[in-house]
Amino acid sequence: MSTTIERSSQYKVIGKDVLRPDGVDKVTGRAVFADDVHLNGMLHAKVLRSPHAHAKIRSIDVSEALKMPGVRAVVTSEDFPPIPEGIVKEEGAAFFALASDKVLFRGHAVAAVAADSPHVADEALSKIKVEYEVLKAVLDPREAMEPGAPVLHEKLNPMSFGARLEQHSPNALQQITSMGDIEQGFREADVVVEREFTTKTVHQGYIEPQSCVVDTAPDGSVTIWSTCQGPFRHRDNTADLLQLPQNKVKVIPTEIGGGFGGKEVPYLEPMAAILSRKTGRPVKITMSRSDVFEGTGPACASYMRVKFGAKKTGELVAAHLYFCFEAGAFPGAPVGGAVGIGLGRYKIPNQLVEGFDVVVNKPRTQPYRAPGATQIHFATEGVVDELCEKIGMDPIEFRLKNVVQEGDRNVQGVPFLRIGGVEVLEAIKNSDHYKTPLEGPNRGRGVALGFWRNGGGMSSCSISVHPDGTVSIIEGSPDLSGTRTGIGMQAAETLGIPFEDVRITVVDTDSVGYTMGSWGSRTSFATGWAAIEAARDVNLKMVERASSIWSVPPEEVEVSDGTFYHRDDGSKKFTFKQLAARLNATGGPVVGSSVVDPTRGVGPAFAANVVDLEVDPETGKVTILRYTVAQDVGQALHPGMVEGQLEGGTVQGIGWALNEEYFFDNDGQMRNSSFLDYRMPVALDVPMIDTIIIEVPNPGHPYGVRGVGENNIITPPAAIAAAIHNAIGVRMTDLPMSPGYVLQALWQQNGH
Amino acid sequence: MSTTIERSSQYKVIGKDVLRPDGVDKVTGRAVFADDVHLNGMLHAKVLRSPHAHAKIRSIDVSEALKMPGVRAVVTSEDFPPIPEGIVKEEGAAFFALASDKVLFRGHAVAAVAADSPHVADEALSKIKVEYEVLKAVLDPREAMEPGAPVLHEKLNPMSFGARLEQHSPNALQQITSMGDIEQGFREADVVVEREFTTKTVHQGYIEPQSCVVDTAPDGSVTIWSTCQGPFRHRDNTADLLQLPQNKVKVIPTEIGGGFGGKEVPYLEPMAAILSRKTGRPVKITMSRSDVFEGTGPACASYMRVKFGAKKTGELVAAHLYFCFEAGAFPGAPVGGAVGIGLGRYKIPNQLVEGFDVVVNKPRTQPYRAPGATQIHFATEGVVDELCEKIGMDPIEFRLKNVVQEGDRNVQGVPFLRIGGVEVLEAIKNSDHYKTPLEGPNRGRGVALGFWRNGGGMSSCSISVHPDGTVSIIEGSPDLSGTRTGIGMQAAETLGIPFEDVRITVVDTDSVGYTMGSWGSRTSFATGWAAIEAARDVNLKMVERASSIWSVPPEEVEVSDGTFYHRDDGSKKFTFKQLAARLNATGGPVVGSSVVDPTRGVGPAFAANVVDLEVDPETGKVTILRYTVAQDVGQALHPGMVEGQLEGGTVQGIGWALNEEYFFDNDGQMRNSSFLDYRMPVALDVPMIDTIIIEVPNPGHPYGVRGVGENNIITPPAAIAAAIHNAIGVRMTDLPMSPGYVLQALWQQNGH
Repeated sequence: MSTTIERSSQYKVIGKDVLRPDGVDKVTGRAVFADDVHLNGMLHAKVLRSPHAHAKIRSIDVSEALKMPGVRAVVTSEDFPPIPEGIVKEEGAAFFALASDKVLFRGHAVAAVAADSPHVADEALSKIKVEYEVLKAVLDPREAMEPGAPVLHEKLNPMSFGARLEQHSPNALQQITSMGDIEQGFREADVVVEREFTTKTVHQGYIEPQSCVVDTAPDGSVTIWSTCQGPFRHRDNTADLLQLPQNKVKVIPTEIGGGFGGKEVPYLEPMAAILSRKTGRPVKITMSRSDVFEGTGPACASYMRVKFGAKKTGELVAAHLYFCFEAGAFPGAPVGGAVGIGLGRYKIPNQLVEGFDVVVNKPRTQPYRAPGATQIHFATEGVVDELCEKIGMDPIEFRLKNVVQEGDRNVQGVPFLRIGGVEVLEAIKNSDHYKTPLEGPNRGRGVALGFWRNGGGMSSCSISVHPDGTVSIIEGSPDLSGTRTGIGMQAAETLGIPFEDVRITVVDTDSVGYTMGSWGSRTSFATGWAAIEAARDVNLKMVERASSIWSVPPEEVEVSDGTFYHRDDGSKKFTFKQLAARLNATGGPVVGSSVVDPTRGVGPAFAANVVDLEVDPETGKVTILRYTVAQDVGQALHPGMVEGQLEGGTVQGIGWALNEEYFFDNDGQMRNSSFLDYRMPVALDVPMIDTIIIEVPNPGHPYGVRGVGENNIITPPAAIAAAIHNAIGVRMTDLPMSPGYVLQALWQQNGH
Repeated sequence: MSTTIERSSQYKVIGKDVLRPDGVDKVTGRAVFADDVHLNGMLHAKVLRSPHAHAKIRSIDVSEALKMPGVRAVVTSEDFPPIPEGIVKEEGAAFFALASDKVLFRGHAVAAVAADSPHVADEALSKIKVEYEVLKAVLDPREAMEPGAPVLHEKLNPMSFGARLEQHSPNALQQITSMGDIEQGFREADVVVEREFTTKTVHQGYIEPQSCVVDTAPDGSVTIWSTCQGPFRHRDNTADLLQLPQNKVKVIPTEIGGGFGGKEVPYLEPMAAILSRKTGRPVKITMSRSDVFEGTGPACASYMRVKFGAKKTGELVAAHLYFCFEAGAFPGAPVGGAVGIGLGRYKIPNQLVEGFDVVVNKPRTQPYRAPGATQIHFATEGVVDELCEKIGMDPIEFRLKNVVQEGDRNVQGVPFLRIGGVEVLEAIKNSDHYKTPLEGPNRGRGVALGFWRNGGGMSSCSISVHPDGTVSIIEGSPDLSGTRTGIGMQAAETLGIPFEDVRITVVDTDSVGYTMGSWGSRTSFATGWAAIEAARDVNLKMVERASSIWSVPPEEVEVSDGTFYHRDDGSKKFTFKQLAARLNATGGPVVGSSVVDPTRGVGPAFAANVVDLEVDPETGKVTILRYTVAQDVGQALHPGMVEGQLEGGTVQGIGWALNEEYFFDNDGQMRNSSFLDYRMPVALDVPMIDTIIIEVPNPGHPYGVRGVGENNIITPPAAIAAAIHNAIGVRMTDLPMSPGYVLQALWQQNGH
């Protein structure tokens, strides 16, 4: 069931469930993903990965592999130029090059073989002799921060997602923010709750493994077909690693079978480019599922300590959030973002946030849908739920009292514009779900509130008007979630033409201006804005053309809803199609283009969840009975797809809450690197998710759009933990809350 | 040997022989042509062609073909929507749809079969039963103009290349222009020469046959990979024929192995689109060589009657040019163009030009490098040569006296800007070749002057600046002759950056604004101009950015030669690379774009030739001994490639002059449809061509560029005919001047 509240009807295209143009291709298998790309003479490559979590590489002998019939080339770190001190190293991106002096995690790529078939390449891997000197590994972030812990890097790069961190210890960076006087705050509190929480490494669970085809020309220029979230980042990282000019690397983004943050960096492309250069032939590398689990970046595990203080009347007065994010083998866990939004949803006058980015001998983590926020909300909302219990206050009323509103200031001191925290809480409070009593033994209900900043950044777009009045749009944002539809709708709305007259294509990095990747809930917002600006540019140029056809000054020509007309002379009027037909003969075609960086217009957003569940006290298994999510989306471009985002994020959040985790053994070996053993929720595990789409238009965007894609994963673990407590009286402070752990907690409560 | 006269050195990039970026790919076989495109599940199609020159189609039975294992679909005209009365019919473009009620030439496409392999498709063609009612055919244009001749069409479309012709008779259209008083003019003449000339059908001789891969999606949208000169025309024609919106057809131009006018229309794409729609799979069609000869458009045969009158002192006073162009089965021979430039190179106060566009039962002709001009120049320069002989005047002096110069008016009454007719004649006159006496029996020397209008029209371009200061350019002109290099050079020159920092790509019809095809010597001129404008747009935006970084008004910032600087403050200075690195962080990327229609700036051009040859009186075989061509190119962008154009055009002209012709039997069946039997010159047949590049800058273009590609084919037949006359005293008035015909003429002269 989907409910939309405050649906606006001021638009003709926006807000309608138009037919998404990529739908049929995707359900019938016609859509071309990276592994569907076949080039003439193409070779297949496989990657050799480290069997050790931490070891020196003494030598690599590839001679036997090269002797195998069908083997064409081998690449090791020696084939790469020395990693420059420049941008690659500063961004901490060395983790996607091949290991050189040391391997830093089990799964670290050491070499790759290109052969006539993937099977030959696979077999050849076993012929590569690598001599390792095994080093002591460190697998826990708190241990890694202890003096005497094994050290992974000579020095840590202090840059993470553009934020500068401080060195804390050989394996850790830190970022600290504070506001008010925390000591004084806790003294003023009537109730204080302090708890520790942990979460495990989880995977984004995209269906399509990483895959690319790379073709290096004799002049060294590289063409990459890749399933990637950010083709320009793939381009820039590859160019940096191979020391090529940026215009000598072209990335053609294929369709993409999920990313959620896991496909932001080029794990395979640089090595494939070198194999292609060595062989003169295109090279394909497609990861196996275990490659994906062991060789790419999951979401970071965490250790968190949270202390909140509140008045009896419910006002939060002090908070201390301390967290260690397990970055994996290279720094770069989403500490800066988590510090920024960790407490951002509540008015807390006195607060201290300490975040740590800690390297351990595990795969280097990557963002996963609202990176860092799910962990932090699990901990902080857990403490809020306990506070509510302690002061005897309804958890929604407590949150309504504390939630930030328009005019309140964020941690950077900037006042919020119109935001929808109150609205999503009210929506849950007034929902049929919340108003319906839950009955029965071992059943419980929980609520939680989530907050996400959403993203901005650069996007580009270009719109070409055809003589028949249809248009083609090109843009640079890979479509992970239906974004091409929402972007096209914003262009159609601005041009005043039907969505069916718009064709929108995601193009390569040579064909459109710089566009940041499809991440951070930025795509429909920022690339949509680029489409609006390109459409405005089209309108402007068509107004000029009409003015020249009518021999009147352009300022006398107006355009509204796809009609161009003279402001005084009713006989002078063109529909969009009529004017389009006249363009080529009256001065040439019209192409509108734009580049935008609408970061200042980003609208943060809230989601609130209510969940009913039942705990089986015999097994610890949690069954979700009913789930309702209310999320402020600003303006739903395509309500059907927005609903899909809300449902999908919630299901991922449920998986994170109840089942998902990497099992590492004591040697740092992942023991469940398949979808059989890594337990993601399937359709049978979850009920239908009820969605309530709240539209509090973002005043910073022409059509009120906020990001939609990430917010919905943030809240489920916290809401489910609250519901488990409500059901069986146990406070779960560690994720996942899978049957074994729940049973253990129950036993502990019962004094077993 | 190549000589360049008046080489300007004002430019840093233009005029240098930079490394062409597509060179290595093309010589090593890496470049992707249409037949190199392989899509998953792709089918192969073959085309059934008419065995009759003129017949009614009574019925087509495809049932047996469809029963064959591996056959997936058959298309006939019944699968096409009725051809609309709109643009397709007006442009006379029905000839690339499948024949419906009648076949109009031997080779007319009747049906096509898509199958799992090309061999199965081939075999299936023989199972299609077509019942024909054979009609009387007409194969000669003069017969076709006679009363009672078989009539091909119910009515003729009077539009040809945008020019409106008058109906002359059921099979012919006409266009007539005149100036002065022709009767009076001939009365004033001291010498009058009147002659008849004929030329045969010849082929453009591109190496790569027509080929395409077409993929029709379930929503009916069509993606086309095609070897084509004009992707936007392919798109528009296909959209019109299939009655699709233009944004539902995307044409991706592949590399192209020659076109010369022969790859302007979509012979295969619409039928492949229907086969793909029927099967749900991509369909490839690649023509065999005989398909190319019999099913596509060669250059038109002609019958011409020319009468020129001159004073004894050499001034031309009157001219009458009458010509019939054999259009083939549908009207559209280049009559309008030939009328426009037929006499355009000389000042002739009294003139009458009558041109006829005549349909006959042969393949519908297409442009071939300076369409119509080679035929007309063969005739008119032949008469000029005879006039020179009659009044005893040196043929170069005669032409110097009569050639149009700046300020003279063309047939439309518009005065010429600076043009290089005198310069090319002087260059030949002063050449080592012309100054070196020719000796020996049966040897002769001839000269001729050629004139071509060149083309303008719409082009679009977009330039994206990368953070490292390299740029990517996209444009829509397939590169037949190195044009991407010359276009990129104009952008690099305008940006003040090295050519190596530019990467230029020809993109699909969705990704760039409308761009007319690569024909009419327009590409380096017009798309180059688009690149200049896009680069100027980049400069403008980067000036704005520098001004914002320096907090100074934009009008105080200047750019010159890739350096941005404050006009007064020497400390404020950015190189292009320095400023590029600052763009993303100071407001986003910079993309410059442009659409242009610089038709008014087109600069017409001249070429003059001198040729020495020897005739074997025993066999009639003509051997070219030495050949020098001087051509005004305005500004040579890339002298090496310009030289290649001059040589290539000359060799094609030599082939047309000496060997090439379609042999049709009395049933309209071509009897030499292979490169074994259709005799094109090979390297052994021609000497090295000496080129003299004349640079008389075109005042209508920012860098003085004129078209280069077509002019050079115009003059060789005329120059060779003059040389044969000089060698053996015979005036050849029919092309080709192959051994048999030369011998026949010799015998006739000697009274055999």
